[in-house]
Amino acid sequence: MLGRINHVALAVPDLAAAVATYRDTLGADVSQPQALPEHGVTVVFIELPNTKVELLEPLGEDSPIAAFLEKNPSGGMHHICYEVDDIIVARDHLKQQGARVLGSGELKTGAHGKPVMFLHPKDFFGTLIEIEQV
Amino acid sequence: MLGRINHVALAVPDLAAAVATYRDTLGADVSQPQALPEHGVTVVFIELPNTKVELLEPLGEDSPIAAFLEKNPSGGMHHICYEVDDIIVARDHLKQQGARVLGSGELKTGAHGKPVMFLHPKDFFGTLIEIEQV
Repeated sequence: MLGRINHVALAVPDLAAAVATYRDTLGADVSQPQALPEHGVTVVFIELPNTKVELLEPLGEDSPIAAFLEKNPSGGMHHICYEVDDIIVARDHLKQQGARVLGSGELKTGAHGKPVMFLHPKDFFGTLIEIEQV
Repeated sequence: MLGRINHVALAVPDLAAAVATYRDTLGADVSQPQALPEHGVTVVFIELPNTKVELLEPLGEDSPIAAFLEKNPSGGMHHICYEVDDIIVARDHLKQQGARVLGSGELKTGAHGKPVMFLHPKDFFGTLIEIEQV
């Protein structure tokens, strides 16, 4: 079921500082920041030859990464996004196996405009997993 | 400087349980466990089309992931490994930029038999970074 890693997301408290570090210290190719108010984050993409890293900074009052940054004030690894061919098939299989889909348990539209769901980290050894149909 | 993501490493308290979850619930292609006593871990590789995930379980007394699992008893995202063409050039550039290499500050031989170094998570917004020359 699991396909490519679409991205690895890192939460950071200060996006401008993180951009400078990834660009200058690590020599990475970083995008311009994009504010995604409907997702509660500002995001920068780091394009790598085989996948990408996303740097996330909270945006607005109810950012989904605010609680994570309260627990990890310096930032940290937030989630891994895997691609699947058919997210409906994936969702039904996951639920049938007892895995919990976060939120309403239904699909949403993700930051890339594609259908996504997030799986409960308690069902996956502390790792927050995003599943995206590409 | 940063090349491909070679792997994303997840620390887990119970490798057999994690293997069952990744294989059966997530439908991933998981390898047989490999004990790496000189690295203090037992590792399982999850091969994905564009990169891999490594599940790490502590092995022996002084496992480098023991402290992480004390803080995160359920497990969690442990590090990201990026490839570089020339790790000496990378190390010198990183040091010149003020980034700290963990341990002696020098290169080691990693779990894949290639030269590696780990960078201090405090210099990279809470993310532990491994750099590997492939």
